[in-house]
Amino acid sequence: MEVLMIGDIVGRAGRRAVRKTLDNLDLEPDFIIANGENAAGGFGLTKDVVEELIGYGIDLLTTGNHVWDNKEIFDFIEESNYVIRPYNYPSSTPGVGFKIIEKNNFKLGVLNVIGRVYLGNYDCPFKVADKIIRKLNNKVDAIIVDFHAEATSEKQALGRYLDGKAGAVVGTHTHVQTADEKILSGGTAYITDVGFSGAQDSILGMDAEEPINGFLTQIKKRFKVGTGDTELSGVIIEFDEETGDACLINRIKRCHNNN
Amino acid sequence: MEVLMIGDIVGRAGRRAVRKTLDNLDLEPDFIIANGENAAGGFGLTKDVVEELIGYGIDLLTTGNHVWDNKEIFDFIEESNYVIRPYNYPSSTPGVGFKIIEKNNFKLGVLNVIGRVYLGNYDCPFKVADKIIRKLNNKVDAIIVDFHAEATSEKQALGRYLDGKAGAVVGTHTHVQTADEKILSGGTAYITDVGFSGAQDSILGMDAEEPINGFLTQIKKRFKVGTGDTELSGVIIEFDEETGDACLINRIKRCHNNN
Amino acid sequence: MEVLMIGDIVGRAGRRAVRKTLDNLDLEPDFIIANGENAAGGFGLTKDVVEELIGYGIDLLTTGNHVWDNKEIFDFIEESNYVIRPYNYPSSTPGVGFKIIEKNNFKLGVLNVIGRVYLGNYDCPFKVADKIIRKLNNKVDAIIVDFHAEATSEKQALGRYLDGKAGAVVGTHTHVQTADEKILSGGTAYITDVGFSGAQDSILGMDAEEPINGFLTQIKKRFKVGTGDTELSGVIIEFDEETGDACLINRIKRCHNNN
Amino acid sequence: MEVLMIGDIVGRAGRRAVRKTLDNLDLEPDFIIANGENAAGGFGLTKDVVEELIGYGIDLLTTGNHVWDNKEIFDFIEESNYVIRPYNYPSSTPGVGFKIIEKNNFKLGVLNVIGRVYLGNYDCPFKVADKIIRKLNNKVDAIIVDFHAEATSEKQALGRYLDGKAGAVVGTHTHVQTADEKILSGGTAYITDVGFSGAQDSILGMDAEEPINGFLTQIKKRFKVGTGDTELSGVIIEFDEETGDACLINRIKRCHNNN
Ligand SMILES: [Fe+2]
Ligand SMILES: [Fe+2]
Ligand SMILES: [Fe+2]
Ligand SMILES: [Fe+2]
Ligand SMILES: [Fe+2]
Ligand SMILES: [Fe+2]
Ligand SMILES: [Fe+2]
Ligand SMILES: [Fe+2]
Repeated sequence: MEVLMIGDIVGRAGRRAVRKTLDNLDLEPDFIIANGENAAGGFGLTKDVVEELIGYGIDLLTTGNHVWDNKEIFDFIEESNYVIRPYNYPSSTPGVGFKIIEKNNFKLGVLNVIGRVYLGNYDCPFKVADKIIRKLNNKVDAIIVDFHAEATSEKQALGRYLDGKAGAVVGTHTHVQTADEKILSGGTAYITDVGFSGAQDSILGMDAEEPINGFLTQIKKRFKVGTGDTELSGVIIEFDEETGDACLINRIKRCHNNN
Repeated sequence: MEVLMIGDIVGRAGRRAVRKTLDNLDLEPDFIIANGENAAGGFGLTKDVVEELIGYGIDLLTTGNHVWDNKEIFDFIEESNYVIRPYNYPSSTPGVGFKIIEKNNFKLGVLNVIGRVYLGNYDCPFKVADKIIRKLNNKVDAIIVDFHAEATSEKQALGRYLDGKAGAVVGTHTHVQTADEKILSGGTAYITDVGFSGAQDSILGMDAEEPINGFLTQIKKRFKVGTGDTELSGVIIEFDEETGDACLINRIKRCHNNN
Repeated sequence: MEVLMIGDIVGRAGRRAVRKTLDNLDLEPDFIIANGENAAGGFGLTKDVVEELIGYGIDLLTTGNHVWDNKEIFDFIEESNYVIRPYNYPSSTPGVGFKIIEKNNFKLGVLNVIGRVYLGNYDCPFKVADKIIRKLNNKVDAIIVDFHAEATSEKQALGRYLDGKAGAVVGTHTHVQTADEKILSGGTAYITDVGFSGAQDSILGMDAEEPINGFLTQIKKRFKVGTGDTELSGVIIEFDEETGDACLINRIKRCHNNN
Repeated sequence: MEVLMIGDIVGRAGRRAVRKTLDNLDLEPDFIIANGENAAGGFGLTKDVVEELIGYGIDLLTTGNHVWDNKEIFDFIEESNYVIRPYNYPSSTPGVGFKIIEKNNFKLGVLNVIGRVYLGNYDCPFKVADKIIRKLNNKVDAIIVDFHAEATSEKQALGRYLDGKAGAVVGTHTHVQTADEKILSGGTAYITDVGFSGAQDSILGMDAEEPINGFLTQIKKRFKVGTGDTELSGVIIEFDEETGDACLINRIKRCHNNN
């Protein structure tokens, strides 16, 4: 049972990279998940953007700190079957943080949690993940965790903490794929960050000019989504259908020229 | 002209990984540079540790935010030919931030700068790097920059900002190798992070127990260096001897069992 | 029923200021509470220091982010009747975050919570305080909250959020007394920070040299407790014995020369 | 020679507090300075707002981290005689960080600097302030520094560092007046924060609802300026006309009902 997990999709360029990748996919994943927190103009999600991405073949969108940037999210996240937000937001937060998606009688539990280091004052991702996984473990065949976090220490620590509990713990948020994919000793697939989907010639998917100006001037101006050639990065994870453990994690990267 | 750049060496396990790697190196770099900020027990450097590492074949140690953790550094950094610290510390800081190392009539300039996002209140790494590179460009054949920084945005931005000015901009500090090595359009080799050298079964090279406890309890206790099997990650960069531009950047990773 | 709340006691100088103030107190508070997180050499508490301060007439010590700095705390906080730590540390944390102290049949509930902005990843102080106050409200005659926090926004917000629920919400941690004491419309006494107790000629109670050097050099060295003349700042709060509402809050400041 | 320094003016309510205070001022300051970073709707300044405040009798507006929030500032800060921005922004930043204002042959130098702790990556406020003060000291009769900063440690440290160099170092940014005004041993008037000007029933001048919601939900929504009764806080500083030293610093606070 294979899952393709795609990193943060950044704006129109990122959505185009998703379409081009999935139109010609040389893999046959059973499930496709992507982090969509930057899919609408770099900031959040709209209903149209969700529908566009689901139309390309994505089964479920996870998110992160940028999920609330576009206020339209509040109109549809409660009803959406396609978007989850980090579980460890306060309990009254709209939307859900865990969803079970099913194909061919295989139930995949997808849990989204967000890190706290440098990011914000959320509930403890370690305890929240542990609790929800215990609760839902016997209702699903495997669990994949999207840990949306900045610090490599926090990401490695959660990976190890959930080793043997979840089938996979994969990082998002930094928009840069790491080269440390592995299967931990307890059977959990792990990677610090799966990367992003968007403009190649960019800073994290955004046009480079304003981010560089921002560092030079210490004055924040509005960022624009990058344009031109695109890339998509992610991982393929194969779960053992009996145990829910991971038996394979492979990084993927696909590049497309802008035609 | 080839340079091997090794990521943050973490404690005894990291030094052992360096020794084992360099003892049996299947590559023939002209220069070997490593980030040594965590080489002495995970925190800073001592004179003995510097000598040990130089004895293994390293030509120069760069550093970062942990450079001052072991107070012995203040006794020898001024005289040391083997250790540089981030250039963009205040101007009165002991030690230097740039060094020229020479082999076979090729002069390699090594510049160490540190990022500010989430890290500290240093001088602007963009302006400092730009200024020093302009100044020293015609005294060296190529320049490699170790950008010790946390945020992927700041690292990508500096890479692009220095594209065409330095021969290579390579990141350190996160202790996790990224999979985004490339040669930018201006001829600068770039990678967000070269990774680390230390215990495999660890959090960033440190024994996993205390870091995980720290996230769970929010109480900081002393970390211990990890033990057991080790790995070393880094990059090989080849510079064109005429232009100083990079013509190749390859990630390397070497694993060793603890015998 | 009057309570004297004293701000963060910093080291030997701070303890001396407490002794001198309480030896000649021109007020007759029923309860004396102080924040002791910096009482032992500026960092944490020891058993001896707790006993010394209780001997001067303090009834209970609250704490904050520095409570664990001196590891001796782990030996006695579980058994201590005189020290509480922020309630919103993870639930497994040693010690308690709320204590009832009684005099003349008046039961004063003292709740210690810590802020998250710029400080750390604790449980939500708003929800934690709300919950514990609801739970214990009918077991006590009045409740005072020591909110140990950095940001004025978070402190003002908690004050208003608890207005009418607690009898007083007083801030600690910044070591600088604010001039905004008031009784909020719901009957809760509020001040953003009660100040500190320690050396006058200092930075937050510590000898000025190293803090200033730290800002100039960006290299952290060990701070020493300030010496010489001292001051103590705090507030007097009077609670209505029937309702538990505050009917008065007055700032106090006492200075002592070092004889 | 007396100066009235008014804390951060927050929106329409803050401007009304300024007008009401200055219309009936029971003091006769020679100069009136105010921090205007929040004067236009809580975020930045517009040309109209500057003119309105100058019309009320303010001589010069200092600013801080919010100065660029309203993009209109870029249209007029270069030409404005009435607005300065923190000097320690990068050197290419529009506007100036120091201005000399003159009355009755007394030249008052006003320097605006911003802190780095928790705020941003500016140039070192200690070195920048020291340098500019040395340079301009003999061109002015006294110097007042508005240090716009968050951390009490950084503010106290700069006060002491400039003691004897500037006539006054007064803090802004926290919007809460501190009770620690004093004249330091070298003759410099100091206060950690002069406070704010705006709606009383508010969080830092903004309507309380959204800030409290923000802490509870960890989702940022747009803040609105507070309404209703107002207050203005600030300090009066008297400078010796011969030496430029401070001979007096008094806190002031004025409250107005909303009629
Ligand atoms: Fe993202
Ligand atoms: Fe993110
Ligand atoms: Fe490191
Ligand atoms: Fe580092
Ligand atoms: Fe304290
Ligand atoms: Fe504290
Ligand atoms: Fe402000
Ligand atoms: Fe501000």
